[in-house]
Amino acid sequence: MLIFPKEKLFQFAKSMLTAAGLSADDAATGAAVLIQSDLSGVDSHGLSRLPLYLSRIKANLVNVAAKVKIVSETATTLVVDCDNGMGIATMPGIMDLCLKKAKESGLAAATLRHSNHYGVGNYYALKSINEGMISIMTTNTTPCMAPTGGVDLLIGTNPITVAVPAARQKPIILDMATSNVAMGKLQAMFREKQKIPFGWAITKEGLPTDEPSEAVEGSLLPIAGYKGYGLAVMVDILSAVLAGASFGFDIGRLDRAKVPKPEGIGHFLLVIDPSRFLPLDEFKKRVDDYVLTMKESNKAKGVQEILLPGELELRKMEQRSQEGIPVTDALAALLLGLAKELKLAGPDDDFSSLINKAS
Amino acid sequence: MLIFPKEKLFQFAKSMLTAAGLSADDAATGAAVLIQSDLSGVDSHGLSRLPLYLSRIKANLVNVAAKVKIVSETATTLVVDCDNGMGIATMPGIMDLCLKKAKESGLAAATLRHSNHYGVGNYYALKSINEGMISIMTTNTTPCMAPTGGVDLLIGTNPITVAVPAARQKPIILDMATSNVAMGKLQAMFREKQKIPFGWAITKEGLPTDEPSEAVEGSLLPIAGYKGYGLAVMVDILSAVLAGASFGFDIGRLDRAKVPKPEGIGHFLLVIDPSRFLPLDEFKKRVDDYVLTMKESNKAKGVQEILLPGELELRKMEQRSQEGIPVTDALAALLLGLAKELKLAGPDDDFSSLINKAS
Repeated sequence: MLIFPKEKLFQFAKSMLTAAGLSADDAATGAAVLIQSDLSGVDSHGLSRLPLYLSRIKANLVNVAAKVKIVSETATTLVVDCDNGMGIATMPGIMDLCLKKAKESGLAAATLRHSNHYGVGNYYALKSINEGMISIMTTNTTPCMAPTGGVDLLIGTNPITVAVPAARQKPIILDMATSNVAMGKLQAMFREKQKIPFGWAITKEGLPTDEPSEAVEGSLLPIAGYKGYGLAVMVDILSAVLAGASFGFDIGRLDRAKVPKPEGIGHFLLVIDPSRFLPLDEFKKRVDDYVLTMKESNKAKGVQEILLPGELELRKMEQRSQEGIPVTDALAALLLGLAKELKLAGPDDDFSSLINKAS
Repeated sequence: MLIFPKEKLFQFAKSMLTAAGLSADDAATGAAVLIQSDLSGVDSHGLSRLPLYLSRIKANLVNVAAKVKIVSETATTLVVDCDNGMGIATMPGIMDLCLKKAKESGLAAATLRHSNHYGVGNYYALKSINEGMISIMTTNTTPCMAPTGGVDLLIGTNPITVAVPAARQKPIILDMATSNVAMGKLQAMFREKQKIPFGWAITKEGLPTDEPSEAVEGSLLPIAGYKGYGLAVMVDILSAVLAGASFGFDIGRLDRAKVPKPEGIGHFLLVIDPSRFLPLDEFKKRVDDYVLTMKESNKAKGVQEILLPGELELRKMEQRSQEGIPVTDALAALLLGLAKELKLAGPDDDFSSLINKAS
């Protein structure tokens, strides 16, 4: 395990994305989203995603020279065609446009189509929190779940992110998949030949299983049965059906694809200016009161602390901002290999020397 | 079990609310929400709620002469003080105002404070669907859940409703509590001395239990653990913290209240005009495609049909519109007693004669 300052890893990620063909601006934007994920402890969506992103760029499935197009626009709404660019390079700018619109109009919403994986939700959440705004983001993803009662993979992990600013307390950031578990976790337990809990997945016939080998051939299960399925459906409706993006069988799968094609997924973004409802200071103070009501309430036996959504990630962010971000040896080896392919590292470089010269 | 046409039960509910002191308009509005609940099979939120509503009116905890006040208003936003009126009498009119604003501005949102239970979510969902709009509604409720790790009842069942219009297919209506089970169901199993499944509730010490006697003294559990808690928190933020309504210990509880006081809960309402994102016909056609993609996909062993959110309720609505709405003997006896108290029924009336003379 190696540990590096966030700035160094940001520069490294930016160099990699630039070498892969992105403009300097897009590379910087995308790298910032990636590093925010590692910084806040969401290791699955940070640098560890770079190999997959780069392999899709290499296979010409993602447009590194995407020209994002505003298809239509009103004072409150924005319809965006991402031109098959990287979601992590496109979404931050659209959030900025929505924040501006919401300041002027009270509310703003954007749909994005022809996009790709947009990375960690809390990056966008923090952007809106910094402007004193509430935001709600949804995205569809590569299908890995069947509808309740079905067996075909038609629905993704379809995460929902909600961001709420506070005054002196930490902001509240809910950032959750509507599946019980990530496909990556299932695959890891498959490789390690571990049993999985019943309720995580079903076989390809739709039967309950605790066998990861059957689960990876089958379907993940949504949280809370038909309720999670319902939430995932609504994420699809906003992010894909309303956005004019792909859904169901039409999505270019990141895995198990017979014919590789662009992902074509979509995103939905809503910003609410709380100051249209209460004076901003009063609203933020009320959020503080809410947070303290929860945190100072009586705890169950054996529980040390009551947490609010996103609190652990924000704490991790503070810690890793000071102490640096850990990179596993396996990931370092993988990234070093890719850096060599992209001519960013020489044959004698190791990962540490590579990172330390990034700037 | 007796069965009556919806029109008759609507007239009965309207008469009861009028006799309890509501204006003719408010009584008609509230009765329409109640009967929609029974019509769509959500029996827990229909006529069966009338005894609780009337008991709170009788105890002067709800203002039957409420003057709803628009606290502030912009082209996209609306802040409403409900003057402690019935939620079922107030919310429909605010939905109408939001639908109008969304038509003009693309998006509209309202917060409502000093309110009471607003009944079944699908009433409001259908209102927005009839106007070709997407809507999202949330409300906080009497606390019955502790935050994850806690034992104090601070969070309600906090339901979320999302409504999506379709073209030829049925609309999609997600209407779900963020708790695993309703308190009413738990209390029924307590009375019947049945064990409850682990995962529904915890004891007042915060320990898992399958004993309903311990559960009713303890706390319900949210769906999907900390994810459901996170969703319930966000419902509280929008419906109460942003709305300027009560939350946590400040809510006037419908049950277990040491000092009876007005509920003081709040609601949040968002309307999105899909025609700002895609031509309305195209959007609705895409919703149809989505619905058919799900329904026509391969089924798990033993499954006859794949359902979309709200489909069962809409089917029940069609059935009960034609065949009538069933009323259990126990509920009929209860309502007859209340009607006698309100001088709507004479000593010789039975429930059937009472309903049949309602008009």
